[in-house]
Amino acid sequence: MVISMKRIAVIGAGCSGLVAMKSCLDQGLEPICFEREKDIGGLWNYSEEVKLSKGSVYNSCTINTCKEMMSFSDFPPPVEFPPFMPHRCVLKYFKMYAANFDLYRHIRFQTSVEQIQQSIDYQTTGRWDVRVRSEVDGSVLTETFDGVMVCTGHHSYPHIPDFPGMDKFKGKVIHSHSYRKNDEFKDKNILIVGIGNSAVDIAIDTSHVASQVCLSTRRGAWVVSRRGPWGLPADAIANSRFMFKLPKSMLQWSVEKISNYVFDHESYGLKPAHRALEAHPTISDDLPTSIMTGKVRVKPNVLEFDENGVKFEDGSYEEIDAVIFATGYDYKISFVDESVTGLKNNQPNLFKYVFPPHLPHATFAVIGLVQAIGALLPISEMQCRWYTSIFSNKTKLPTEDEMLSDIEEKRDEMRSYYHSQRHTIQAFWIEYMDEIASMIGVKPNLIQLFKEDPSLAVKCFFGPCVPSQYRLVGPGKWNGAKPTIVSAMDRLMNPMKTRILPKNRQISHNKSRQIMISGPAFLRSYFIVIYLFIVLILCMCMA
Amino acid sequence: MVISMKRIAVIGAGCSGLVAMKSCLDQGLEPICFEREKDIGGLWNYSEEVKLSKGSVYNSCTINTCKEMMSFSDFPPPVEFPPFMPHRCVLKYFKMYAANFDLYRHIRFQTSVEQIQQSIDYQTTGRWDVRVRSEVDGSVLTETFDGVMVCTGHHSYPHIPDFPGMDKFKGKVIHSHSYRKNDEFKDKNILIVGIGNSAVDIAIDTSHVASQVCLSTRRGAWVVSRRGPWGLPADAIANSRFMFKLPKSMLQWSVEKISNYVFDHESYGLKPAHRALEAHPTISDDLPTSIMTGKVRVKPNVLEFDENGVKFEDGSYEEIDAVIFATGYDYKISFVDESVTGLKNNQPNLFKYVFPPHLPHATFAVIGLVQAIGALLPISEMQCRWYTSIFSNKTKLPTEDEMLSDIEEKRDEMRSYYHSQRHTIQAFWIEYMDEIASMIGVKPNLIQLFKEDPSLAVKCFFGPCVPSQYRLVGPGKWNGAKPTIVSAMDRLMNPMKTRILPKNRQISHNKSRQIMISGPAFLRSYFIVIYLFIVLILCMCMA
Repeated sequence: MVISMKRIAVIGAGCSGLVAMKSCLDQGLEPICFEREKDIGGLWNYSEEVKLSKGSVYNSCTINTCKEMMSFSDFPPPVEFPPFMPHRCVLKYFKMYAANFDLYRHIRFQTSVEQIQQSIDYQTTGRWDVRVRSEVDGSVLTETFDGVMVCTGHHSYPHIPDFPGMDKFKGKVIHSHSYRKNDEFKDKNILIVGIGNSAVDIAIDTSHVASQVCLSTRRGAWVVSRRGPWGLPADAIANSRFMFKLPKSMLQWSVEKISNYVFDHESYGLKPAHRALEAHPTISDDLPTSIMTGKVRVKPNVLEFDENGVKFEDGSYEEIDAVIFATGYDYKISFVDESVTGLKNNQPNLFKYVFPPHLPHATFAVIGLVQAIGALLPISEMQCRWYTSIFSNKTKLPTEDEMLSDIEEKRDEMRSYYHSQRHTIQAFWIEYMDEIASMIGVKPNLIQLFKEDPSLAVKCFFGPCVPSQYRLVGPGKWNGAKPTIVSAMDRLMNPMKTRILPKNRQISHNKSRQIMISGPAFLRSYFIVIYLFIVLILCMCMA
Repeated sequence: MVISMKRIAVIGAGCSGLVAMKSCLDQGLEPICFEREKDIGGLWNYSEEVKLSKGSVYNSCTINTCKEMMSFSDFPPPVEFPPFMPHRCVLKYFKMYAANFDLYRHIRFQTSVEQIQQSIDYQTTGRWDVRVRSEVDGSVLTETFDGVMVCTGHHSYPHIPDFPGMDKFKGKVIHSHSYRKNDEFKDKNILIVGIGNSAVDIAIDTSHVASQVCLSTRRGAWVVSRRGPWGLPADAIANSRFMFKLPKSMLQWSVEKISNYVFDHESYGLKPAHRALEAHPTISDDLPTSIMTGKVRVKPNVLEFDENGVKFEDGSYEEIDAVIFATGYDYKISFVDESVTGLKNNQPNLFKYVFPPHLPHATFAVIGLVQAIGALLPISEMQCRWYTSIFSNKTKLPTEDEMLSDIEEKRDEMRSYYHSQRHTIQAFWIEYMDEIASMIGVKPNLIQLFKEDPSLAVKCFFGPCVPSQYRLVGPGKWNGAKPTIVSAMDRLMNPMKTRILPKNRQISHNKSRQIMISGPAFLRSYFIVIYLFIVLILCMCMA
């Protein structure tokens, strides 16, 4: 007897789509992935062409989470890749993953999804009808699938706020969604609206050629660097289990102290009205220098536009040639009825941002519709492992009531925590990963681990919480997990060691740091944490 | 009876030429300035055209000393100029100075100096014959002057080291002297040789468009940021009288600790074989990020070139399309016989790098032939004030023997201090300024000052050693000196305050820092110094 494999429609072949396919294959499911473009990568598939509803990065974009923290849990990035990868490198990594797990043959390129709805037999089977259109010949086809994973991301529908006089303004107006290169902004006066990562990246990129760049922000932001102490990747230090065990107020306080020590946010015009971590921090290494050299000028919120310029809320006026709105995105899933996702006013009604709680079958999932201070890829991967585990009946969803009350609880928590109404799909990275990992049985038990392998347990607690930590135990356990965890910091820092001093020429007055940087992983994490603690206490004494 | 004014030939209308003219006018001397170009500014007079023996900045150049530390002592930069000025801003500032002191009418533009030699009556008069050529019509003219101030800088004659196989290499080869913009290096593999400020600036500038940038360094370097704690200009904190009173080994040690805390120089491939301050530190805010994102790769010294690339001393090979040598300059004064300046192998034989010790008259001076960790402009200005003071018989030079032994002593000191043979015109900024200031009677007496104006004295000791400190007493005393010194830090930071939070929206949990940043000048400097001390002691405990 031939048992046909269950077929899962994966919408989109970006990073979430790739892990969706891989997770399906791991569980013996057959993924069929629909990708509108000619290549994989989604957002990271850089293209000069601008398409509404297709996300894309700008040419100067470099990812702001380090490679080990944004990696596939069972496929670490090549050791020679830089700690923070430019977008071309990210795409290369995705392609290596796709090739390694033979995912390409499951993808139908140049095929866009037009509609997804419950099959006629949905109530009994949980199946979905997917109507797709070929981008090549326009042909339309409807197929029925046992499950659906929506992996289309949330950087597709630009959000532009409405300011008085915008219709009068004669200059160029674009959204960061359409921004690619700085060429066309040469010798122009540019206004960037927003203070998120794109806003700041684009401000810096245009400032290399523009006559003047103004960066208008309503709220200000806490700006942190990619680099932490000793130039180690900041997220590799901050995203550790140890750090997340600290009281949130202490984390906030220390982020503020450290950020202000790097540059005083008030003096630089960036001080926000909210506490650190109450909104997404902005990650930028270059912004303070751009402000200090006058290339980027921070301005308050826009009051109104006129033909040639803009008036700000403080009454100041600037003549400008172009406005770039880096004001985020609206979350939409155009091909699924709102009643399925409950996605209204950017707020989805999904259990853990994945499952519609009211459906009788757990066959439909939204993957990657999460904002966390940390990389999205591992979150998507965890969601996919969860979905396929449920689909294969290895795990069960809670009851509808439980899910609904969890959604409400999380919303309240986020509402009380985050300063802005636009934070509708927030999660705390490790907390969220652990919650789902617990449900599928892949969360490492550190106490148990400490008995078996104390040095690994210490590393898992104090060291960077790399995604491979979720491959140590349970379904999908991977033998490479331990070496990946242990060598994470070395693999991060090694690609930069392209000039090694001959031993006899080295000066030897930095022994303590040598232990920390080159020494055993355990010692290193340990020292950094102690050091940060002393700095914190010191700052506290001064406060 | 009409007494005709003594006439001084000023060669070059760069920053040194401008202060030379101003100093002449202050002493009732008549400056006649010969400038080869059509405009003032020298190095800072940006031009796309490349001319041998004319210095020029590259388009992305931003000065690496803050505006208050590089200012004319009696003409502070406009408060609205950014703390670190892009080159266009620097030129604007020079033009404001020239206009304010009515210097333009003393300049003969498009006139190059061909030869300067002693007049026939030199032994009795100390006069010099200056032969000039018009760049417009080629006409040649010789005039006799009572004095000569050579203000031609030392960034005119590119130094390119000799590597095996350079003649075979088929790609483009230029010196940083000819580098202007990154356009032509788009999508190319670039090799930059050198690790000075130009090398690193150009590496970063090209990395925005290049396919790959390699930065080859023989010795490595200590790389420091423009920004110090709280984003205050690092040089404004470091160049204080208090700091320079600390033992040099302690300064070295703390520069190393702080630099390594920002990014570990060994991990980033930059660790030098010498201690900090034994060679010029490299000032760059962007280099660590460029390395971390893989855009700039640090490589060891070049072993040899072949047709298509370069082999490094570690045996690695890179294909490259273009080489940019940012390997410094040879010091030459083409129009004066070597016997006057004693300038041989980049080593001048000049008392305090200004006066030839063997001449019977102190009528010939070289201005600005100094390298210090600090801005050149105030040094040139001090030298000019010294020269004109001597010329007007208000000050005397020591005897030839005393001068010769001082030159020898300084050479020995520099030789023992500096790691590299190429450090031939070094000076310690405050020490050098104070030495000359003492000779002309403009060095502030802090003990005396403390009795009269304790808060100003504290500011002078702990605060940034701004050039106006040399306008508090003695000849050339300026009433604006005190307000300039007192407000230095505010004027530095104010231009960035382009977005001020409404009071009621501010969070108030940063009181201590508010005192430091916005509080009285005295408290601010005091807190910073205490803080740095605690950090130092902390680092020491860990070492």
